[in-house]
Amino acid sequence: MPENVNRQWVLKSRPDGMPTEADFDLVQTPIPSPEYGQVLIKNLWMSLDPYMRGQMGSSPVGSVIVSESVGRVMESRLDGFEAGDIVRGRIGWQEYGLLDVTSAFPVNPDYGPISTSVGVLGMPGLTAYFGLLDVCEPKPGDTVVVSSASGAVGAVVGQIAKIGGCRVVGIAGSDEKVSYCVDELGFDAGINYKTQDVNEALGVTAPDGVDCYFDNVGGPITEAVMEHLAMYSRTVICGRISEYNEATPSMGPRILRYIHSTRSRIQGFTVNQYPAQFEEGRAQLARWVKSGQIKYREDIDEGFENCPKAFIGQLGGANFGKLLIKVSDE
Amino acid sequence: MPENVNRQWVLKSRPDGMPTEADFDLVQTPIPSPEYGQVLIKNLWMSLDPYMRGQMGSSPVGSVIVSESVGRVMESRLDGFEAGDIVRGRIGWQEYGLLDVTSAFPVNPDYGPISTSVGVLGMPGLTAYFGLLDVCEPKPGDTVVVSSASGAVGAVVGQIAKIGGCRVVGIAGSDEKVSYCVDELGFDAGINYKTQDVNEALGVTAPDGVDCYFDNVGGPITEAVMEHLAMYSRTVICGRISEYNEATPSMGPRILRYIHSTRSRIQGFTVNQYPAQFEEGRAQLARWVKSGQIKYREDIDEGFENCPKAFIGQLGGANFGKLLIKVSDE
Repeated sequence: MPENVNRQWVLKSRPDGMPTEADFDLVQTPIPSPEYGQVLIKNLWMSLDPYMRGQMGSSPVGSVIVSESVGRVMESRLDGFEAGDIVRGRIGWQEYGLLDVTSAFPVNPDYGPISTSVGVLGMPGLTAYFGLLDVCEPKPGDTVVVSSASGAVGAVVGQIAKIGGCRVVGIAGSDEKVSYCVDELGFDAGINYKTQDVNEALGVTAPDGVDCYFDNVGGPITEAVMEHLAMYSRTVICGRISEYNEATPSMGPRILRYIHSTRSRIQGFTVNQYPAQFEEGRAQLARWVKSGQIKYREDIDEGFENCPKAFIGQLGGANFGKLLIKVSDE
Repeated sequence: MPENVNRQWVLKSRPDGMPTEADFDLVQTPIPSPEYGQVLIKNLWMSLDPYMRGQMGSSPVGSVIVSESVGRVMESRLDGFEAGDIVRGRIGWQEYGLLDVTSAFPVNPDYGPISTSVGVLGMPGLTAYFGLLDVCEPKPGDTVVVSSASGAVGAVVGQIAKIGGCRVVGIAGSDEKVSYCVDELGFDAGINYKTQDVNEALGVTAPDGVDCYFDNVGGPITEAVMEHLAMYSRTVICGRISEYNEATPSMGPRILRYIHSTRSRIQGFTVNQYPAQFEEGRAQLARWVKSGQIKYREDIDEGFENCPKAFIGQLGGANFGKLLIKVSDE
């Protein structure tokens, strides 16, 4: 590879339904130079997350795909940052990127391996933390159901709920993922939505109803959960991976009867609502990870060239754990 | 009519879809005598409300239809109640009924005509009061949309929202009802869902989006409103008149995308959650009615024999204002 080359994945066309590799273009540009107030970052670990599908429906064609990374400062013209520092920020799908005081965040090396700063201690972990604790408001003894249960968010949701004394049921897409949730993470029960009838299985695994539902998927799984809501239940709508590829809403059974009859609450959520509390949440998650109360699993794809393939696989449920692209060792 | 006869409407068969008159039977029994701790009430005004359809799906065949009334004490064996007192309670569809200390509530004659105790100052008014103020949490300047806008609940919702400085849009089923909301009750705009495309009309009447939605109907009207939710909006699911006749959920477009993208909240509600605050709510509503800030309209059907016909008409939107059966003058 020649020097002074920055490879970028850009949006070639807005995906129609499930993205294909043809929707992305790998281009080369010079490595940019930081202006005053900027830092040049070399991308080390990149986080791939299902929510990015939503942005691809509105991002300009030709723009670099947006995502979060952790990387190393190569050159700094920003006070407080020095070459060699490890920082986190929305560099996107490129090997080098510029950040500034509003977008570069130091990574605390005491918390653990730097890849965790975009995983269990990053947006996915914080999403689980605030979505569960602040929106679902679980109480000891509550039954908490989480979909995409072995994923970067779901696995943390279930473990925090267990720490809080809840009964936890995880819904995932393979027996291996379900076993991981139950046997390794300590969930009380699991449902494989690909081989089981979710509605029937909830009758068995959540016999007293669902007090809290952390929804990462939408669609038929969520509609099955709605039939099992307990009185005064709380659902957080955090993701809708089953619906991201739909340009217009698909049809499903009308669910408001369940919300009405159980006096339940459903609330949309993204972690970006909680910036002032990020450090508090990150510190708590780091303590739980250090104590072994929260385990995490990374699904690492080596090589920047694999971004589109890995992302498309993720939308189909191919990853197992937090999906990361390892962009570079150095 | 012979003496000592109590006419009752009982459930002959659980309705399949929209109830018909054949689902109800008019029977005669002796007027009951109060035991110690009971009062015998003569039914004067009876409230008919759409939510009763739900109960008809689970009540025992042969039982008296449940509803709320205001009536006169004929005989009292309960401390604190005397013959001649006006009380409110769930007497049901019968000319005479027994109540006790848990089910008989004195009516404050200073508040207004006694019929209002089951209308604007009763469950419908309190439903509007707590559902709007406690669940929707409107702020001055918010856009509030209410369905069944000219009905017993909707009309009060819109007027309380106006008192609170909101912009109010009412959705109703005739031009006459829409005019009533706008011209007599002071709503800012109205939509006739039978002649207008609700989605398009909301684009015009709620150009900044819907901050609060008070839902009495469910179904396609609610789905149209979902497309116009403002960021951080609050919806209260209070009734689902469009869905009550469905044994199983009908299909509609999946709405969670709107709740998710706007970080909105949807919550099921009945006024029975607020018993400790009923008197506070009733007193406030009475002040607003006396001051003329809240107007009300009664749709009175004279004659006990008309109960089924009037109720079926209500489910089809035939009434205009609070639907009451005048059972007796005395």
